[in-house]
Amino acid sequence: MPHLDFWFDFASTYSYVAAGRVGELASRAGVQAAWKPFLLGPIFTEQQGIKDSPFNVYPVRGRYMWRDVERLCEKYGLPWRRPSAFPRNGLLAARVGCAAAGEPWVPGFFRAVFRANFAEDRDIADPAVMKALLESAGQDAAALVARASSPEAKQALRDRTAEAARLGLFGAPSFVVAGELFFGQDRLDDAIAWATR
Amino acid sequence: MPHLDFWFDFASTYSYVAAGRVGELASRAGVQAAWKPFLLGPIFTEQQGIKDSPFNVYPVRGRYMWRDVERLCEKYGLPWRRPSAFPRNGLLAARVGCAAAGEPWVPGFFRAVFRANFAEDRDIADPAVMKALLESAGQDAAALVARASSPEAKQALRDRTAEAARLGLFGAPSFVVAGELFFGQDRLDDAIAWATR
Repeated sequence: MPHLDFWFDFASTYSYVAAGRVGELASRAGVQAAWKPFLLGPIFTEQQGIKDSPFNVYPVRGRYMWRDVERLCEKYGLPWRRPSAFPRNGLLAARVGCAAAGEPWVPGFFRAVFRANFAEDRDIADPAVMKALLESAGQDAAALVARASSPEAKQALRDRTAEAARLGLFGAPSFVVAGELFFGQDRLDDAIAWATR
Repeated sequence: MPHLDFWFDFASTYSYVAAGRVGELASRAGVQAAWKPFLLGPIFTEQQGIKDSPFNVYPVRGRYMWRDVERLCEKYGLPWRRPSAFPRNGLLAARVGCAAAGEPWVPGFFRAVFRANFAEDRDIADPAVMKALLESAGQDAAALVARASSPEAKQALRDRTAEAARLGLFGAPSFVVAGELFFGQDRLDDAIAWATR
């Protein structure tokens, strides 16, 4: 089955748009999508020497992004409310993702985390919010948050982020198909076409 | 008639891709496209504090861009040869564009400048190259290069670049439709759809 790796950060607005589209587009094309949360922060610091989102560091670009994401959510029928804090720390959510990698409920949970951040203005860095989202996904929330805090889950996320850097990622969302990198939610269709060509 | 402003810099690889697509897409949709060359350099310096292309300043991003543009040119059937110098200075070409603004041969000439840079590896900053391109466009090359060096043409390009900054541009290509800004050649279809909605 053709395969696509979907690399994203829970803090990333354009990752939210991609997360709302990738499941349907991939399944329609017969492509298997693997969801790979990672942390953009260390990559931005390493590559650009910044400690905040580029959309905050470069406000002209930030102004455009907020309008653009609103427009894209309207285009794709995704719920949207501009969060009162940006970027929100996606570390805990990404660690949960690493702790539960491969389990079938995970993509739905990831979409719920994105919705919490970008449609419901909830603080996804708050363990209570994370537990509520895990419970809504039918999971043992306390056990998963504990697993997410284990040395193994922490190391898995560090390894994942190091892998992203090795693959040449510099932003999110990114898609990797058979060694080809596609950057930006705008290029999701190209990535899927590459997987099926 | 619906209208779209196409903002670009002759040094910009993604502007080359957009320049190869905008004419056909706009005319098919019944949209009038106005070609607006401007200078990215002052905008990058003002907004990001850099004096070179971000693709040189941030090499990970640069590596991706070169592969991505090659892929896009294949997708859209555009000729492509990676230039031996990047970015090439588009100042003279942009001044010629300002001196001849509104003349009907100008978009074809602009496309030829882009091809010279990105398909023929010619130095578009060289007045001899510019004259050859103007002659190929059936123009009085010496007169136009002289007009391009007039205080009026220089001021027109400064004004154009200041207008780009006022509109919130931070990169190229950008499209402006009824006050809505779209950034990136990936968003050309969205910009045209906005113009005709």
